[in-house]
Amino acid sequence: MAESAAATPTSADDDPAYREAVVDLLGAIAYGEISAFERLAEDAKLAPSLADKVDLATMASGELTKVHALHDRIRAFGADPFEAMVPFREPLDAFHLHTAPADWYEGLVKAYVGDGLANDFYREIAAYLDPETRDLVVSSMEEGTHATFVVDRVRAAIAEDARLGGRLALWGRRLMGEALTQAQRVAADRDALTALLAGGVDRPGLDLAAMGRMFTRLTERHMARMAELGLEA
Amino acid sequence: MAESAAATPTSADDDPAYREAVVDLLGAIAYGEISAFERLAEDAKLAPSLADKVDLATMASGELTKVHALHDRIRAFGADPFEAMVPFREPLDAFHLHTAPADWYEGLVKAYVGDGLANDFYREIAAYLDPETRDLVVSSMEEGTHATFVVDRVRAAIAEDARLGGRLALWGRRLMGEALTQAQRVAADRDALTALLAGGVDRPGLDLAAMGRMFTRLTERHMARMAELGLEA
Repeated sequence: MAESAAATPTSADDDPAYREAVVDLLGAIAYGEISAFERLAEDAKLAPSLADKVDLATMASGELTKVHALHDRIRAFGADPFEAMVPFREPLDAFHLHTAPADWYEGLVKAYVGDGLANDFYREIAAYLDPETRDLVVSSMEEGTHATFVVDRVRAAIAEDARLGGRLALWGRRLMGEALTQAQRVAADRDALTALLAGGVDRPGLDLAAMGRMFTRLTERHMARMAELGLEA
Repeated sequence: MAESAAATPTSADDDPAYREAVVDLLGAIAYGEISAFERLAEDAKLAPSLADKVDLATMASGELTKVHALHDRIRAFGADPFEAMVPFREPLDAFHLHTAPADWYEGLVKAYVGDGLANDFYREIAAYLDPETRDLVVSSMEEGTHATFVVDRVRAAIAEDARLGGRLALWGRRLMGEALTQAQRVAADRDALTALLAGGVDRPGLDLAAMGRMFTRLTERHMARMAELGLEA
């Protein structure tokens, strides 16, 4: 982490539009980790056992430990990390407000599906980043070993209660819908970030067809995760 | 951590009374970390700024990351970590229930004073442990760099508002009183743990005079911490 702080952003990208986009992206990811920490810590209260609580609290702590390296990288681009996070507070807080889990299992599905979706998106966008930022972004989203814990718990619960499976399948769709709503809002507000994907005069980006394919990949992976949990997407 | 899990508890201490005491101690510390995580994560909601929130959330995560090594060590003594924590849930939950901070500053003082007191006690008791457990216990309570953050915030706030200083001084006394109440309860319930301090037939321990001196040291260090915060103890 000290390394990222020390290093100067690389080569190609003295481009102010690029810097603005990257600072936006890192700010969004950092605030995403902070709010994920808060929600997971909150959801851990619903845990049916102390062991479950520790597992979810460990996921929460894992999110938070990634924040500092992201902040260091934002500083390396000459920006203030707390200012960089500001534009993303409202959409991310709104996402969490609209998707407050009603019980332990909704919390688990949200942790799994939400984390997975965010990670897929960041992995897609990583292709457009300078190598050092790309490494940081990719490393800050390693899924860790906790996914297994969620899958096991959810599968066991719906095996016992089929109605729960139906409810959680609807819940998964609602999470995806709400994520898209907020993502659209961010895209509309943050031109530099959108331009990073769309490309610029002298930088290749995604055309509309490519954007469509990216969206299809994200949806497919979401469906694969739902299937992994034993839920219909 | 993997190392502690693999190693067999050392030498002197196939003594079943010692094992029972150490498992108790590690269970108490581990549950203490989990409940500290929960409370700090909760108190972080009261943060006046996002930067403050990240600082307190980082303290929370720091507590939780220590849990797994403590659990590994409990397993190395042939015990189940979740069973080992059970006797300490009620007294620690009671402590937190009776000392729920009314605002951000009470939360900060609690984090600083509570953490410090627990650490001092564990450091005292560490002298009676086998070397490997001692190293683990001592390393799980390194105070980190966050103490400075608490001291700065509290000092700045009472410089602006003298009445706050008076209220927080009372609060510090209440924290100490509640900690002693719950510690006494644990001492009365957990014979093996108490015997670890008091010694046994063939193991030296503290006589009453030495216990008194230990108590004096803990009180003095508590007063030093209050002074550090700019508060009368």
